[in-house]
Amino acid sequence: MRPIPLRGRPLAGGAMPAVCVPLVARTPDALLAEAAAAVAGAPHLLEWRVDFLDGIERTADVVALARRLKQVAGELPVLFTCRAPQEGGQPTVLSADRVAELHAAVAASGAIDLVDIEMAAQPRHLAAVSGAARAHGLTLVLSFHDFQRTPPPDELLARFRQAHALGADVGKVAVMPHTPGDVLALLQATWQASEALPIAVAGMAMGPLGAASRIVGGQFGSALTFAAGQAASAPGQLPLGELRTALDVLGRASAR
Amino acid sequence: MRPIPLRGRPLAGGAMPAVCVPLVARTPDALLAEAAAAVAGAPHLLEWRVDFLDGIERTADVVALARRLKQVAGELPVLFTCRAPQEGGQPTVLSADRVAELHAAVAASGAIDLVDIEMAAQPRHLAAVSGAARAHGLTLVLSFHDFQRTPPPDELLARFRQAHALGADVGKVAVMPHTPGDVLALLQATWQASEALPIAVAGMAMGPLGAASRIVGGQFGSALTFAAGQAASAPGQLPLGELRTALDVLGRASAR
Repeated sequence: MRPIPLRGRPLAGGAMPAVCVPLVARTPDALLAEAAAAVAGAPHLLEWRVDFLDGIERTADVVALARRLKQVAGELPVLFTCRAPQEGGQPTVLSADRVAELHAAVAASGAIDLVDIEMAAQPRHLAAVSGAARAHGLTLVLSFHDFQRTPPPDELLARFRQAHALGADVGKVAVMPHTPGDVLALLQATWQASEALPIAVAGMAMGPLGAASRIVGGQFGSALTFAAGQAASAPGQLPLGELRTALDVLGRASAR
Repeated sequence: MRPIPLRGRPLAGGAMPAVCVPLVARTPDALLAEAAAAVAGAPHLLEWRVDFLDGIERTADVVALARRLKQVAGELPVLFTCRAPQEGGQPTVLSADRVAELHAAVAASGAIDLVDIEMAAQPRHLAAVSGAARAHGLTLVLSFHDFQRTPPPDELLARFRQAHALGADVGKVAVMPHTPGDVLALLQATWQASEALPIAVAGMAMGPLGAASRIVGGQFGSALTFAAGQAASAPGQLPLGELRTALDVLGRASAR
């Protein structure tokens, strides 16, 4: 089981899983307030879901905001994500080319630490974002989301393998379960991927049925779990305090 | 998913899973004190592990103690278990015939609500205990334990099927995992059994590695989980308060 690497060291001291709070504000002031509230809850990292931001088309403003966010985040690493609408993101005015340019500008700013992009992005955009991440020493998360269903186990494992093949530092798979068996399939694929691949993996089942996976995923190799701060970015995220409480109980039980 | 039946109604209002605290005292006074402390933590039922009791060979004394225990337990149902050494119980002076006689006497006393016996017990003892349970309206738990390893998934499922075939109201399977994959195998078999069989099922992976199964088992059809009161009766049991905290978080998350 591998924790998420960050500039050559394990993020969050190797905590399994690292707890991430998404930031989904639409305005700069709201974003900074949301970040400050999240920091107070002491997660391991923040994810800026920039696709929610009004004014995302003004690259210089976004870069300036990234710098202000970094100040609020302090020691906490920031994951920069412009999620595509096809995988659960907000519709934006940006073309895919402009998204890649935004990534490059923000990566170059030194204000972020990790970036996430969908494996299903167009190859040249994937290459551009991966290249920017590499050039600036950022951790690259390559992700797959299915908000409708849980693909069969071999397909889930194939997604993790694809992330590795595409050069990810972290392969992330998030699916919607319809039965408890779907949740087990996600956990099984996460566990198998963590055994088979030399990168960190993150697996989560969404919605109420999948909530258990956000608590116990780390036991099955998942290096990352998301908790709601002021708002959730995907269905089933537990409030940060609740998730930390459950993880603390599980951590003590697993260490006995 | 079926909760444990108790005299025709779902135990604990159908809570999934019901939380049981084992009592492992060696003397009557210690047993009653242990029970009182457990009751204060508000589990859903108590399990009297009578194999720990000094003086187990004096049947009349055990029956009298069962009645006193019932008074301390109040509204909480009592599960009566004389676990065999081959499945993790304490060595006792009783022959298998005497164990069956003890079961019959305690069942007839009206002081207990459920009984547990290993599926691996000799057929005539199994029949005697099952008969006593039926005669007195008790819930019958038929169990399988492997403290060494986790059998393959099809064997786990076969154990649940065997419990049903033998007339159980609850089929219980507890195994020792050596990998996270073993924990998933136990959860998978529990889930499949809960789907396939018309009885309640309980599945748990023991030890630190299996602790997650004691928290999330109910999500996969397990109707019963054990938490340590003053002492644990098997490795990996979380303290009652800790388990309840985690179950509460998971319950809220699953209901969202």
